[in-house]
Amino acid sequence: MSKLTHLDDKGEARMVDVTSKAVTEREARAEATIRMAPETLRMIIDGEHPKGDVLATARIAGIMAAKKTHDLIPLCHALNLTSVKVELSPGADGASVHILTRCKLSGQTGVEMEALTAASVAALTLYDMCKAVDKAMVVDGVRLLEKKGGRSGRWRAPEQ
Amino acid sequence: MSKLTHLDDKGEARMVDVTSKAVTEREARAEATIRMAPETLRMIIDGEHPKGDVLATARIAGIMAAKKTHDLIPLCHALNLTSVKVELSPGADGASVHILTRCKLSGQTGVEMEALTAASVAALTLYDMCKAVDKAMVVDGVRLLEKKGGRSGRWRAPEQ
Amino acid sequence: MSKLTHLDDKGEARMVDVTSKAVTEREARAEATIRMAPETLRMIIDGEHPKGDVLATARIAGIMAAKKTHDLIPLCHALNLTSVKVELSPGADGASVHILTRCKLSGQTGVEMEALTAASVAALTLYDMCKAVDKAMVVDGVRLLEKKGGRSGRWRAPEQ
Amino acid sequence: MSKLTHLDDKGEARMVDVTSKAVTEREARAEATIRMAPETLRMIIDGEHPKGDVLATARIAGIMAAKKTHDLIPLCHALNLTSVKVELSPGADGASVHILTRCKLSGQTGVEMEALTAASVAALTLYDMCKAVDKAMVVDGVRLLEKKGGRSGRWRAPEQ
Amino acid sequence: MSKLTHLDDKGEARMVDVTSKAVTEREARAEATIRMAPETLRMIIDGEHPKGDVLATARIAGIMAAKKTHDLIPLCHALNLTSVKVELSPGADGASVHILTRCKLSGQTGVEMEALTAASVAALTLYDMCKAVDKAMVVDGVRLLEKKGGRSGRWRAPEQ
Amino acid sequence: MSKLTHLDDKGEARMVDVTSKAVTEREARAEATIRMAPETLRMIIDGEHPKGDVLATARIAGIMAAKKTHDLIPLCHALNLTSVKVELSPGADGASVHILTRCKLSGQTGVEMEALTAASVAALTLYDMCKAVDKAMVVDGVRLLEKKGGRSGRWRAPEQ
Repeated sequence: MSKLTHLDDKGEARMVDVTSKAVTEREARAEATIRMAPETLRMIIDGEHPKGDVLATARIAGIMAAKKTHDLIPLCHALNLTSVKVELSPGADGASVHILTRCKLSGQTGVEMEALTAASVAALTLYDMCKAVDKAMVVDGVRLLEKKGGRSGRWRAPEQ
Repeated sequence: MSKLTHLDDKGEARMVDVTSKAVTEREARAEATIRMAPETLRMIIDGEHPKGDVLATARIAGIMAAKKTHDLIPLCHALNLTSVKVELSPGADGASVHILTRCKLSGQTGVEMEALTAASVAALTLYDMCKAVDKAMVVDGVRLLEKKGGRSGRWRAPEQ
Repeated sequence: MSKLTHLDDKGEARMVDVTSKAVTEREARAEATIRMAPETLRMIIDGEHPKGDVLATARIAGIMAAKKTHDLIPLCHALNLTSVKVELSPGADGASVHILTRCKLSGQTGVEMEALTAASVAALTLYDMCKAVDKAMVVDGVRLLEKKGGRSGRWRAPEQ
Repeated sequence: MSKLTHLDDKGEARMVDVTSKAVTEREARAEATIRMAPETLRMIIDGEHPKGDVLATARIAGIMAAKKTHDLIPLCHALNLTSVKVELSPGADGASVHILTRCKLSGQTGVEMEALTAASVAALTLYDMCKAVDKAMVVDGVRLLEKKGGRSGRWRAPEQ
Repeated sequence: MSKLTHLDDKGEARMVDVTSKAVTEREARAEATIRMAPETLRMIIDGEHPKGDVLATARIAGIMAAKKTHDLIPLCHALNLTSVKVELSPGADGASVHILTRCKLSGQTGVEMEALTAASVAALTLYDMCKAVDKAMVVDGVRLLEKKGGRSGRWRAPEQ
Repeated sequence: MSKLTHLDDKGEARMVDVTSKAVTEREARAEATIRMAPETLRMIIDGEHPKGDVLATARIAGIMAAKKTHDLIPLCHALNLTSVKVELSPGADGASVHILTRCKLSGQTGVEMEALTAASVAALTLYDMCKAVDKAMVVDGVRLLEKKGGRSGRWRAPEQ
């Protein structure tokens, strides 16, 4: 039977031992959506002309958060990401922003948590910048889209 | 018309000036839900007997993340929270964990972002601890439930 | 004779005791200039159309660095800034970017180091983003322009 | 034509992808100068007898800051420096302290930003320790002196 | 009967709520001793002539660690220390260094953990700097000596 | 004669250059003991039924602290631990908790400081959680038990 790898035989938390794992190229992509009032989205987009900083701030917050993941998630290994990308785009529904992240590493552990953390913090940063006008925003669908590399190989999210 | 407070007249990001705001008691409550396979939830709960660390680790990660909010969200003010509470409970649907957070402060700014960050990071920590058995978990409904204190007074999420 | 306040009688470093200092409104403004090739400045400015992130990234890096000052400067007191502003503007000479910062606090210590740190890190961030095309950039004139509040009152830089 | 590597095609900030870059030995040297009143320099030097902590504190602050570079500069890769050296020496003009830094790494990215950050923070730390007696100090000439390793090979600052 | 304040009724960790506690002047003193071979102590002391950095480095590490306490101890409140002092002195036995710390705050919570953390990290820093010559060093007697302020008033360690 | 490796010829602190050291598997084990009143230990153990968080919180604090070691100890190299384990067990004397840590790395430097830091911070976290009922607790015997790997090979603490 499958077991939770982050607990030892006594059920106690530990950082999983990856000392003897191979160094391979790893990649993970994640996403999140923040839903908001249509007027809120309009303000964000308007702020983008000519050099409004809303989306840029969220993008940078996401990138920096990816680098802090091991400091936030107790049992995550520290690692030196070789690439982080955070893309934000207005939702087709006119009432959301979609966040897509991708992290890469040449190392011994996967980077799923880094991609998920980047997406979450980018979404929270949008919330912060718009909360004066819209406190009812909701972050939904924070999930892993795909991972590559490592012993378990490739994984893709089921269609939703 | 309402404007985004975190941008100045040129659309550039800034930390909002709260120098002359009154020090009042502030409180915010937030929530998040992480959906998972029923077997994953069962493993988490089983891990709780007699002293499994899954929920404890997420709880502590959430508390510590609340203290790091200003380091994650670029325009958030640093502040000294006077109370943080993170509660995790298995969902009635047998396929989720619900996270409820509450932060308090006696200060010049609200603590909404701290409550939301605690909820997000607690959820991500659960993802990390269970991802070896269930990569398809999704974090949904990260939102503010209520805020009290400050000039804008009390606010409650629309549907509860 | 005047003495270095950060050393005790034995010449040993210490954090100055401000326990009994009054809480007053404090403010500091600082500046820095990064000199570069005219083509480098042109690239930065071009990047600004329509939503290039060079100046936005430096601006946000400066704001976040102000919040980390006590973590960088060993004897600085931790404090909760109430306002941070970082402004970047192309130099009139067509070969530099000028950085102007302002930090505010209602507290027991001055915020000079926060304003200087914000200016330095904003300048270094510009260096980072442009170093692939211009490694010879130089950061000059990092200095305090003005401070207000506290027992020593107002101070302005000699030549402005 | 040369382009800013830290922006993608849309002008958006990203962390440059170094996943497939070779691991090579890299080294960077940087410098900074802090100008001050002659009496300020005299106090620093006097503080050095027999075990004053001014220069030691700046030296250590510079070393620690080098390790935090990726946390300060948004698009910098986290990396594990293999060597950091920070040297401070009184200027021949009797009114300045000169800071020389050298960082080394066996890795996929250069360490220019680490050397520059160490120099800047060492200078700011001197400012902090002496600001009670000399607020008009100015940090000048923060620049890269030399870099070695990596695909672009060796680079030396123009005038030395 | 007395209960552990950091656990709620269900035995779950929480940050104790101090929102309504009075702001008072608080102070805590702590100590630690690191025992070592006599030759190791001799090297440390020799390094002090004329400006060796061993004790200075430990002193600064202790001061900086005090500021990071809330980031290390999960349920500690973040707070803005108004004073930190770390004193190191060779033991009378010729085979140890004694560390004495004192932290102060004008705030709602005690600073015992800050004083203890400063002492521990100063001791560990000495270990780090001398471990190439003496791996058998032992840190002993890390304890609180005295606390003042707050509702529980003054407390002194039993035997001094 | 043996010399302190963290000081250069002038007695100044530096981060030791490990650029050309071989990457080998490294491991370190450390321990610490926190002595307390018998009633305090009883409360901790009682808190463990069925899911009290005292030992879990200390365990997680120790693991997270290991990852922060280079941020606490000024001359420590940053490194990416591949495994961290923190075990806490009630002392046979009924008046203490014993902490045992083990860190692993595939890298160029030893992980002794990481194991010692994990043990120290786990002990301090226990102090924090129990200080409301027992301020006289003392942390003793923080020491390295064993190290393996690297040029100097295996080392074991003298008396075990």
